[in-house]
Amino acid sequence: MKNIRLGIAGLGTVAQGVLQIIADNGALISSRTGVSLHVTQIASRRERPGVDLLGAQFATDVAALASADDVDIVLELMGGEDTALTLIRDALAAGKPVVTANKAVVAAHGNELVRGQQRGQRAAPLRFEAAVAGAIPIIQAIQQGLVTNRFSQVVGIINGTCNYILTAMQEQGQSFDAALAVAQELGYAEADPAFDIEGVDAAHKLTILSALAFDAPFDFDRLHVEGITHITLDDIRYSAELGYRIKHVGIARRGSDGLEVRVHPALIAQDRLLANVNGVANAVVVDGDTSGQTLFSGPGAGGLATASAILADVLALARSDNEVAGNEGPEIETVNPTLAEPVFTDMQNIQCANYLRIPAQDEPGVFARVANALSSHGISIEAAIQKEPAAGQDVVPIVILTQVVTERAVLDALEQVRELPQVVGEIARIRVASV
Amino acid sequence: MKNIRLGIAGLGTVAQGVLQIIADNGALISSRTGVSLHVTQIASRRERPGVDLLGAQFATDVAALASADDVDIVLELMGGEDTALTLIRDALAAGKPVVTANKAVVAAHGNELVRGQQRGQRAAPLRFEAAVAGAIPIIQAIQQGLVTNRFSQVVGIINGTCNYILTAMQEQGQSFDAALAVAQELGYAEADPAFDIEGVDAAHKLTILSALAFDAPFDFDRLHVEGITHITLDDIRYSAELGYRIKHVGIARRGSDGLEVRVHPALIAQDRLLANVNGVANAVVVDGDTSGQTLFSGPGAGGLATASAILADVLALARSDNEVAGNEGPEIETVNPTLAEPVFTDMQNIQCANYLRIPAQDEPGVFARVANALSSHGISIEAAIQKEPAAGQDVVPIVILTQVVTERAVLDALEQVRELPQVVGEIARIRVASV
Repeated sequence: MKNIRLGIAGLGTVAQGVLQIIADNGALISSRTGVSLHVTQIASRRERPGVDLLGAQFATDVAALASADDVDIVLELMGGEDTALTLIRDALAAGKPVVTANKAVVAAHGNELVRGQQRGQRAAPLRFEAAVAGAIPIIQAIQQGLVTNRFSQVVGIINGTCNYILTAMQEQGQSFDAALAVAQELGYAEADPAFDIEGVDAAHKLTILSALAFDAPFDFDRLHVEGITHITLDDIRYSAELGYRIKHVGIARRGSDGLEVRVHPALIAQDRLLANVNGVANAVVVDGDTSGQTLFSGPGAGGLATASAILADVLALARSDNEVAGNEGPEIETVNPTLAEPVFTDMQNIQCANYLRIPAQDEPGVFARVANALSSHGISIEAAIQKEPAAGQDVVPIVILTQVVTERAVLDALEQVRELPQVVGEIARIRVASV
Repeated sequence: MKNIRLGIAGLGTVAQGVLQIIADNGALISSRTGVSLHVTQIASRRERPGVDLLGAQFATDVAALASADDVDIVLELMGGEDTALTLIRDALAAGKPVVTANKAVVAAHGNELVRGQQRGQRAAPLRFEAAVAGAIPIIQAIQQGLVTNRFSQVVGIINGTCNYILTAMQEQGQSFDAALAVAQELGYAEADPAFDIEGVDAAHKLTILSALAFDAPFDFDRLHVEGITHITLDDIRYSAELGYRIKHVGIARRGSDGLEVRVHPALIAQDRLLANVNGVANAVVVDGDTSGQTLFSGPGAGGLATASAILADVLALARSDNEVAGNEGPEIETVNPTLAEPVFTDMQNIQCANYLRIPAQDEPGVFARVANALSSHGISIEAAIQKEPAAGQDVVPIVILTQVVTERAVLDALEQVRELPQVVGEIARIRVASV
């Protein structure tokens, strides 16, 4: 039996989840893994009187965890950026492995902390399964279960707040604002929801997923990021008529001229499994050349679910799998050199089908003029919906699903469509994801 | 870089998939993992002239692999039982780790081969990710990513042949026989399909899943096993009217008085993700107390997909995660003693809702008599469908969805229903799975 001593930074819901799991399931975990977990130190700026610390020493000095003698693994569960980054750096430099759920820090500093660049080779490993998709062991899947694959695409519903809102709009016919308000009431959205609904949270997670799946640098700044604030009930209904659901997704894919990494709402064909992942659930679809398409879904947040992933990382660090001797060969680079500096595709060059909703005067020949404008940019129409205007109204939406075209062609064509005298109001455009 | 030498037994589609992945993605795998894979020995009773053996030595003597000097890991990819079992035993005894896709051998001999019982502690580890759900890393998820969970239920669509046939019946309105014939044409079903459509293959896989998730013995004989040969198009259509789809599932769950382990067709509410896993795809839903509900789906068969799981096991054996020193504590049993001898629930005591289709004469009061018979056994009706008889017919199906009751109550009640003079022909009964 191996005793592992944990030092925990932070005492919020995830840290409390870790304590609860060790209290409730510690014996079961030991019997399964041969590892006995002991929380020796907890550091947090704020005390939480009601929480059972399992006998750990409590301190308000977080930084001291990095060099604590009685800590084998540091759990960084504070969130935030600066203090967390300092703790992670110091602990790794002191030779202590770190486990974190901090997607912002990993996305921004992954090249240094995970790849050991910039500050020399890392002194100890950093693990971060909990940073992406909560309880779902997606990082382990990409790095171990699916490790033989050359991946072509990773598509994830990786923000539970967005998925809750879009599901409520879809299933209950709520407006965006109403759905957001309910999400806030239920604790699925923050008082300031911008971080989630503008796509930043999903972008942090996609940065991590894409770096791992495509053996690429962690490069948050290369992402194209859109949120869901512009999605209307009309768009959800017309998409459904066309056989699609709207989901907020992160997409990393190997396109013909480089790596695409983008976060935005997307239509997904409703018979696809990913389109049926509803509520606050997360899910990630992975396409690879050896495993085909696999999907992983589950809770993307929550104290216990996140703590479960944190402790899975702890146990992976603690368990020795040194079961095969093998022979030592020459050292090689551990990041594929052909992919270490990937070409990122310019967003203008990505190719996908598009949903368009174009508000237009109800006059003869309008649809033809729109179709001509699209056609002049090489854009064919896959499907369309044209309704009668509502009583007393003379504006009618023209809804079009295009074939697969470049982003540039769509943007140029919409520029032209916008100038048609019959087109009034804002055009909605949502990309289609093929998974 | 660690060089690992592989000895492969068998040269069928899975072995060929292993060779292809090493040839195509070997360099990528090495750069990711620091492990270089070398196939040094291939043994198969049958030569395959066209296959590139990657420089390996070929022999027809499979047994010799167990003691070959230039083999670090043995890959048992022959299938079958006796020769495979002997090879696995001998290799483990010789201290060579073994990776296999052989679900029949693991299900029947897991207590010996995996748990090291009967023949003393195993000398080397056996891994078998590929034995369950093909490319999906479900065993790794249960043993590592979700290792902190006390599992309450594992429900899987784990036979692609059954899922293909049921999906074709559902989506194309084909009869069972027609769908089976197409499955055979497409290579999704064997010429003798009994092993798949009678549920034996799924039972092997569920034996493995249940042993791992519930820290229980491998006990194939305790399973209740039903296939799909009695499922009719009518049942699929009536289930759809009630809001359900019929899937062939393996269920292992912790009931109130023990462990239930059963393979049978089941109605699943159509808004559940598992109900939307179609075609030859496999999927496993895992419910745990820390991670909540997670789902894993993907290809359940195929040379490359299975080979991908085989090599993931090989790489897990080869990679050392010995990154944390920790302190040695006292040895403990590595199987939870409280669960080592689980109580298996008698099938008569399991509880679930039930779909019933009762062919009856179209006479006044028949429905009431059926309802009374059910009621006298404590069975309430959740929903029902009663149609007019087709023109010229006087038999009409009474379709009933019961509330949750014991298996015993349903069987007893049906005994009584069967004796009603108005009931003619065979009663269909399909359990409902709640996932």
